[in-house]
Amino acid sequence: MEIPSLYLERAVSQFAGLPGIGRKTAMRLVLHLLKRERTDVDAFADSLKALMANVHYCRICHNICDGDICGICATPSRDHSTVCVVESIQDVMAIEATQQFSGVYHVLGGVISPMDGIGPQDLEITSLVERIAKGGIKEVILALSPTMEGDTTDFYIYRKLADYKVTITTIARGVAQNDLLHYTDEVTLGRSILDRKPFILK
Amino acid sequence: MEIPSLYLERAVSQFAGLPGIGRKTAMRLVLHLLKRERTDVDAFADSLKALMANVHYCRICHNICDGDICGICATPSRDHSTVCVVESIQDVMAIEATQQFSGVYHVLGGVISPMDGIGPQDLEITSLVERIAKGGIKEVILALSPTMEGDTTDFYIYRKLADYKVTITTIARGVAQNDLLHYTDEVTLGRSILDRKPFILK
Repeated sequence: MEIPSLYLERAVSQFAGLPGIGRKTAMRLVLHLLKRERTDVDAFADSLKALMANVHYCRICHNICDGDICGICATPSRDHSTVCVVESIQDVMAIEATQQFSGVYHVLGGVISPMDGIGPQDLEITSLVERIAKGGIKEVILALSPTMEGDTTDFYIYRKLADYKVTITTIARGVAQNDLLHYTDEVTLGRSILDRKPFILK
Repeated sequence: MEIPSLYLERAVSQFAGLPGIGRKTAMRLVLHLLKRERTDVDAFADSLKALMANVHYCRICHNICDGDICGICATPSRDHSTVCVVESIQDVMAIEATQQFSGVYHVLGGVISPMDGIGPQDLEITSLVERIAKGGIKEVILALSPTMEGDTTDFYIYRKLADYKVTITTIARGVAQNDLLHYTDEVTLGRSILDRKPFILK
């Protein structure tokens, strides 16, 4: 498909470089932008430039923030002795949305994945160990995705933290809320039986 | 989902304002951009600004272009007496990709759709009529989508051009290449029988 304008071509190529966006979708998005006001599209462009220029990562937990330390680490009322280890910033937001966790986080920035060339040195694991070594942390909750890569990373961190006096826990795995039992995969279902809990009437 | 950075929030909102992109996808795209080089993302932003600043629409056919007249209208070897009327720039590119058309185009910029508040005055219909009135055009091919809106627009243009000495044709409708006959909808199939053609061995 030949694009009749060099500027259109460039903008389409930029959008098509984003994950999950092909050239046809990119074209649709750019033609949508072309129908908007110029000031509106300039604001779009400026928001990206401002993001790259101003965004910071929290010095303590590596969550995204606007200053030196993120809002969560800067809140004294949170439980700073409980650290929840997550893969990404999206995971922090997902857990925050549950309103079930009052501790602090540690964002790894990924999981160990030899297939993708990501090793422990590419992740914020050394800074996690340093944080634990400083003391004051009682519990580390490993909240990585229950995948091969997540499990590998869990195990690696577990080994790294073995010498420190800290409780290491992982989030519960089992049948998801509203899932039909007979559609649940056998590994999850088998595990949910092994990890059964006393029934408590709430 | 609360976003921990104002700049992140703004960029996510901008992406989420694009058609077909929700907040979760927008977040994924922005976090992808954050992992890129700053110069890379600045180039993305600049490509949008350059697009809005430099893009033009062809004075003759309203196709997108970088100058005053588009590449198609500026090519003397094309058949300037045959005008193909299309809804959008994407349609021009789709027809050009077939390499079956050597005439020129007229981009309406939409179709008549009272439901979306789009009337004939919002489209490039007056400029089409003026183009025909000038003379030199023998055939107008209506190549709009075979929808209610496309058919309405076809009919409107047909009425507007009735007084001019110009042949008006529409693109063939029928069973699409490689479609299974028993999955083809009954309107299309019925029409393909009514519009049958003499069999020619190619």
